[in-house]
Amino acid sequence: MRRQKKFYAWGYADEDLTADEIAAWEAPIARHYGLAGFDVTPPPTAAEIVLRPPRVAIPAALAEVVRDDHLTRLEHSYGKAWFDACRMFMRTVPNPPDAVAFPRNEAEVVAVLDWCDAIGAVAIPYGGGSSVVQGIEPTAAFDKVVTISLREMDRVLEVDPVSHAARIEGGVYGPHIEDQLRDTPFTMRHYMQAYRCSTLGGWIATRSGGHYATLTPHIDDFVESMRVITPVGALETRRLPGSGAGPSPDRMFLGSEGILGIITEAWVRLRKKPTFRAAHAIRFPGFDHGARAVRDIAQAGLYPANLRLLEAREALPGVAWDNTDALLMLAFESADHPLDAWMARALEICRAHGGSPEPAESDDSPQRAGAAGAWRDKFIRAPHYTEHAVARGILAWTFETAMTWERFDAFHDSITATALDTIRRVTGRDGTVTCRLTHVYPDGPCLYFTLGGILDRRAMLDQFMDILTTCTAAVVEHGGTTTHHHAVGRFHRPFYDRQRPDLFAEALRGAKRALDPKGLMNPGVLIDP
Amino acid sequence: MRRQKKFYAWGYADEDLTADEIAAWEAPIARHYGLAGFDVTPPPTAAEIVLRPPRVAIPAALAEVVRDDHLTRLEHSYGKAWFDACRMFMRTVPNPPDAVAFPRNEAEVVAVLDWCDAIGAVAIPYGGGSSVVQGIEPTAAFDKVVTISLREMDRVLEVDPVSHAARIEGGVYGPHIEDQLRDTPFTMRHYMQAYRCSTLGGWIATRSGGHYATLTPHIDDFVESMRVITPVGALETRRLPGSGAGPSPDRMFLGSEGILGIITEAWVRLRKKPTFRAAHAIRFPGFDHGARAVRDIAQAGLYPANLRLLEAREALPGVAWDNTDALLMLAFESADHPLDAWMARALEICRAHGGSPEPAESDDSPQRAGAAGAWRDKFIRAPHYTEHAVARGILAWTFETAMTWERFDAFHDSITATALDTIRRVTGRDGTVTCRLTHVYPDGPCLYFTLGGILDRRAMLDQFMDILTTCTAAVVEHGGTTTHHHAVGRFHRPFYDRQRPDLFAEALRGAKRALDPKGLMNPGVLIDP
Repeated sequence: MRRQKKFYAWGYADEDLTADEIAAWEAPIARHYGLAGFDVTPPPTAAEIVLRPPRVAIPAALAEVVRDDHLTRLEHSYGKAWFDACRMFMRTVPNPPDAVAFPRNEAEVVAVLDWCDAIGAVAIPYGGGSSVVQGIEPTAAFDKVVTISLREMDRVLEVDPVSHAARIEGGVYGPHIEDQLRDTPFTMRHYMQAYRCSTLGGWIATRSGGHYATLTPHIDDFVESMRVITPVGALETRRLPGSGAGPSPDRMFLGSEGILGIITEAWVRLRKKPTFRAAHAIRFPGFDHGARAVRDIAQAGLYPANLRLLEAREALPGVAWDNTDALLMLAFESADHPLDAWMARALEICRAHGGSPEPAESDDSPQRAGAAGAWRDKFIRAPHYTEHAVARGILAWTFETAMTWERFDAFHDSITATALDTIRRVTGRDGTVTCRLTHVYPDGPCLYFTLGGILDRRAMLDQFMDILTTCTAAVVEHGGTTTHHHAVGRFHRPFYDRQRPDLFAEALRGAKRALDPKGLMNPGVLIDP
Repeated sequence: MRRQKKFYAWGYADEDLTADEIAAWEAPIARHYGLAGFDVTPPPTAAEIVLRPPRVAIPAALAEVVRDDHLTRLEHSYGKAWFDACRMFMRTVPNPPDAVAFPRNEAEVVAVLDWCDAIGAVAIPYGGGSSVVQGIEPTAAFDKVVTISLREMDRVLEVDPVSHAARIEGGVYGPHIEDQLRDTPFTMRHYMQAYRCSTLGGWIATRSGGHYATLTPHIDDFVESMRVITPVGALETRRLPGSGAGPSPDRMFLGSEGILGIITEAWVRLRKKPTFRAAHAIRFPGFDHGARAVRDIAQAGLYPANLRLLEAREALPGVAWDNTDALLMLAFESADHPLDAWMARALEICRAHGGSPEPAESDDSPQRAGAAGAWRDKFIRAPHYTEHAVARGILAWTFETAMTWERFDAFHDSITATALDTIRRVTGRDGTVTCRLTHVYPDGPCLYFTLGGILDRRAMLDQFMDILTTCTAAVVEHGGTTTHHHAVGRFHRPFYDRQRPDLFAEALRGAKRALDPKGLMNPGVLIDP
């Protein structure tokens, strides 16, 4: 029996934060803003939301594959961003898909696409639906929409123990990959906050960022080959460890966000499960000190698995809001060798920039101790807070980018200032902005900003969109990428248009016309027809 | 004064191997094949080769930029493969470019492309002309051909000492990059056999493979952003350390082989010049033992700069032809930390597979000692031997591929057998085939095969082409890539067509139509119009 997902917010219908968790989160926010407490909007029930009747009729041949019941359509209407939950709490779902297909194999994927083609319906490929950028959301412009969920195609088909790779179907959720690898020495180890409810195919289509802070931050770095069903046929790239034969076909589909076809399976690289681990949390007297240590470690060729720099007020419970310390979570892992030399040199670099290691944590303890452990638990639970923030009119959301180091300080300062100014302008009172570095390249980091504030309940969606779009526009104006690992979707589209060369859009449009001549596939994402 | 390149073979007109070098190379070959010696065809002089008169008239506005003198056209007619030198020694150049442009800036690149467009000439972008795959060779099908050499655009324009990167013009030769970085702490360190006479733009267009055996084998891994002049305009990608915003624009031009536009400059990653180095040569009792050590090292996450496995008979002077030992050249380098822990673990892995370290070499000695040093010197001089092989009818050439580990042994054996059989079939006597591993991924190596034999002087071009195409066809048939880092060009085109998905060709054709609607740019390479 498939576990029902929560249609209006993150996670499954049968799970939620505990009352204690909510109180421990809500009380300091109320205190910070001098509020007695929050009015809480109850979450919507499915019955409260009226959907337009389906505009397509499911053909008999697809009766087992396609559904158009109310809850299924509702569940597939929005992604999982703050603004998605907000619209659900407003009971506003004007553009649901008309039907949702759950093909069980490639033949059924083809049959569903053929049906879309025959009836002139837009086809929206759907992985776990964890998009935070309106990547899987139908718009009012579509006459008919069929969302195609790959969730029935969820098997690890083959494990290659010699090359350390596996052939995996596109619709598998993160944990189910690791479940199926349990009896092997291998792990894929591409974790992210949305890991529990996102899929391999979705990761590939959106260039997801995972567990590894260095070397292999993106899913791009895992893919050996893939199979894609396009409206004009199936395509399979050759499984190779590396090649120089023309532009990489895989790289055309990595980040294609469903506009070229549906990724049904891929060969991906695995690793042996790590048996050696060295981890430290290091406290720095300022984010800038920590950032310089991160830069030096990234440029030293040490390649830690974790190199995550957090502001103390974001990382540590009970830290005063004016605390300017930063906390670096540093970890090396290996299935091959002890990591003392690696960690010793990385700690030397940290000390040179004023870092002090916190008391050592034991990573293997069932209850992970220390600042890093506390932060990690919070990180994994974080998506559950969004619905409670929405229910209270609390601004609690993030955006991420990447930028080269030479402009890092100025960039960090100006984005922070823009975000603070914007929250003040829009909400009429001061908010909070913190930053963390999550993935790091020798030439620059991924910056992840977290916004906090109190919105006006009567206009909170507009306020939220104003704040987020103003911040994202500033990111692109100051030279960052509109997204480092959350994809473009419909939300980032105007900013993406400023960032990517116009002639690349022309080239991509040319490629799309070849694979999707009628423009069925997720139109409006990345490019216009 | 620009140093004149040798029009008929590798290198500059004023350099050659010494008589002693030639004798030391030629004598063992003659001995091996039981020959008294070789007839030697003298190299061609420019005057001996008749070229069709230019079919284009250089407009007055481009008089300073475009040349059509005999030697310039001759120099730009072929690449540097064995079959190129062979045709030069045959004094056969039926399809020279009609003119060669040497634009000094982007405005002149645009002017030249506009001129090509106006007169309906094919435009062939040209870096150092070191192609070994007919990548820059005009064909009989072209009515008019203008080759566009970027050699006048050879500056390092900007160095970013914080992010460790530089903005560099596309036409700069390898050594001139390092010359211009001499007063900085940085190096690009993307070396390959053709380094002396190949360019950054050429590397990007062909996905060259360089110095690093692991982590950053291809130029792909160095590129932050680029500028490209296409027939419909200029395009500049955003300089970023990483991004997830749609399919990577850079990756569309990496490997585009001149069919989409001309790469005029790029931001590329640099590193600090290494100050720590640990190097060993390790002898294995068999190539298969060495290959398993290479695989384990690649999968261990140690990331050596060099991890090159050679058959002893290829690596060591005076080794008997039936010797089946293999030699691994293993080196770590760093500008940050001593490498003892890295090397100790790698040597442990080698010993577990039966490897014995040779006496330690001192890499800093002016005269590099040991087997690895000897092999490296030979490697850098190797391209000079091609013309002497051609002059004697000696088959001496290589081809490379990459393949996942799980089929490695069978693949290695079957390609070796095919090559030996083919040389015997074509030349009527036994030849030699050796293999080395040059670049290594966790999931597979790049295999580099070297062919040896004696050709019939009256039919040697046909014999050579028969052997090389048969071997390349076998590579693709057995699941390898037709090229790991030598590009597709016109030579690999039929094999590339079997390897890459047809629908990817359609997509690439769509992209090309958007950027090069009249099909001026290097037609027939990668795709047909």
